[in-house]
Amino acid sequence: MTREELLSAEIKKPDGEIYRQAREKWDSIAKPIDGLGVFEDIICRTAAAQGSLLPDISKKALIIMCADNGVVAEGVSQSGQAVTYDVAALMGKRRSSVGVMAGGYPVDIFAYDVGINSDGTPDGVINRKVAKGTADFAKGSAMTEEQCMEAVNVGIEAVKECRDRGIGMIATGEMGIGNTTTASALLCALTGADPESVTGRGAGLGEEGLARKISVIRNGLEVHTDGPKASTPEEAFSALAALGGFDIAALAGVYIAGAMYGIPIVMDGLISAVAALLSERMVSGSKDYMIASHIGREKGMRLIFEELSLRPVIDADLALGEGTGALMLFPMADMAYRLYSEGTGFLATPIGQYERFT
Amino acid sequence: MTREELLSAEIKKPDGEIYRQAREKWDSIAKPIDGLGVFEDIICRTAAAQGSLLPDISKKALIIMCADNGVVAEGVSQSGQAVTYDVAALMGKRRSSVGVMAGGYPVDIFAYDVGINSDGTPDGVINRKVAKGTADFAKGSAMTEEQCMEAVNVGIEAVKECRDRGIGMIATGEMGIGNTTTASALLCALTGADPESVTGRGAGLGEEGLARKISVIRNGLEVHTDGPKASTPEEAFSALAALGGFDIAALAGVYIAGAMYGIPIVMDGLISAVAALLSERMVSGSKDYMIASHIGREKGMRLIFEELSLRPVIDADLALGEGTGALMLFPMADMAYRLYSEGTGFLATPIGQYERFT
Repeated sequence: MTREELLSAEIKKPDGEIYRQAREKWDSIAKPIDGLGVFEDIICRTAAAQGSLLPDISKKALIIMCADNGVVAEGVSQSGQAVTYDVAALMGKRRSSVGVMAGGYPVDIFAYDVGINSDGTPDGVINRKVAKGTADFAKGSAMTEEQCMEAVNVGIEAVKECRDRGIGMIATGEMGIGNTTTASALLCALTGADPESVTGRGAGLGEEGLARKISVIRNGLEVHTDGPKASTPEEAFSALAALGGFDIAALAGVYIAGAMYGIPIVMDGLISAVAALLSERMVSGSKDYMIASHIGREKGMRLIFEELSLRPVIDADLALGEGTGALMLFPMADMAYRLYSEGTGFLATPIGQYERFT
Repeated sequence: MTREELLSAEIKKPDGEIYRQAREKWDSIAKPIDGLGVFEDIICRTAAAQGSLLPDISKKALIIMCADNGVVAEGVSQSGQAVTYDVAALMGKRRSSVGVMAGGYPVDIFAYDVGINSDGTPDGVINRKVAKGTADFAKGSAMTEEQCMEAVNVGIEAVKECRDRGIGMIATGEMGIGNTTTASALLCALTGADPESVTGRGAGLGEEGLARKISVIRNGLEVHTDGPKASTPEEAFSALAALGGFDIAALAGVYIAGAMYGIPIVMDGLISAVAALLSERMVSGSKDYMIASHIGREKGMRLIFEELSLRPVIDADLALGEGTGALMLFPMADMAYRLYSEGTGFLATPIGQYERFT
């Protein structure tokens, strides 16, 4: 897909009639009306996204985008870039945090090298390296527009492959030292927020490091953005190329492709959420196919959920990354879906011989 | 156990040294420090409760207490009492909401008839009926003190059986038409809160029904409580007997027994949470063995979590009951535990050949 094709893409609205029918189906089950709250909405939106009253979420995947960020040269992280490769290498063996957590749970995990600063790509990680990390946005544009578009296409292709495998719901994850800095900078560019109000400690910065991170972001915004806020699809794309990481660009592609193919995409933490906001700004309507998982610990999250009108269901101060929070949503969605599809009630469900009582 | 034995019971503090070691173990895993947030604390508290750095949560159970409430005669619910029996009958077949949701998930479900207003007990439900429902607290005491203690003992025995089966974590649930009324009344008695500020719509009351429910609670408090707040263990027990349901009394027994036997008990919604608060008021220290699951939709929940210094991790407007929210915590706890016990890190874990990087 070219930049022009991307920015002029049109997203079909999820099926409103299916959504309405799914609500009715929930209300026909023997339980208090709206008893599963936000989870009922998640299932209805999944049905509308897939265009089926009984959407198929039996197969699920986690797509993790790994990349390095030139801006770490400015001292915005306490970890070295080598950690990105090391954790990706663990991911390839399903031994990083998210792989271990997924242990007994049936989910396909696809980790992509979309720009790790290394010659090779670790075993078990899919090689789609655009470059060995982005350039330092404090010194110039992080990516060229061509590189940015190449990374977006990695995300689009990743979802296409999932679709071909019959996967019905996709969680997003990332790994890349420095990527809370790129994500926070982009969030400011997209919303006009002040860096101080949305910049957090990432994987554990102290006071001094946090102050440096904020100052690096502030300078980057001055150099790379025109006004207080990137409003058009073109401005959003330019901000992404100037400040973003390959991981964020690729995840934006995941959200856009989810909307194109009717597959709900589960957001994770700050980096994933900023990619979600970017995708909506570049291709309006993408947000209708997003599912929020957790509110996280990073300061910018609340603003993003407001912008996207989404509501996370996990509130546990998560700050791990790799898609761990999005993964944790899956078994809860399974439970909700089971009640939705098999619940005892008035409708002719497999065990529907009981009268409705609410 | 007698009332006197109960109210003078002493709870051993969870093992602080184990808690500290568990924190260290988390910090040794290759991930951002405190990356799993509240879930790290849940695992540490479970370790301290069981007194083992590697607590066993491979076997889990859900204990559901079912009972009827005389106060429904005052028109505080839009459903008839017969629904309690009908849903319990579904539970016995694992076909009520929580049974369907638990479908593919390994958990033992024990549903108890602790006071359903019926001659018999449904198949698959354990018969510990104290009486055919409580008396109407608007007209007199809901239970005698003997009945109340009998119900508490049902909960204690239920946990004892779980312990004998090697169950390492227990979720709580309930079913009983009218029990948000009894729970709200008790919450007011225990905290001095005004009924208007903590009374919600239960399974779906309208404006008029809500006003009636509040007025019934207000009258009940005037008749049955001395001052603004039941502070001593004896006062808490008396409030429970006067206003409570058999389900709440039995669940209070579950929390107290969890604390006695070192098994963490997972709270569900309002009724379960009020039972938790009651157990702490009757037997101080019980709260150290509680795990909060969700914040729910009922108004009183926030107050209870403040009183118990606990933090729920699910925020999804749940209002189903039966232990559904507590059940949803289990697979997330499994994922966290897997990372805790098998995560790659500096410690000598099974795959611990990598350097710590945070």
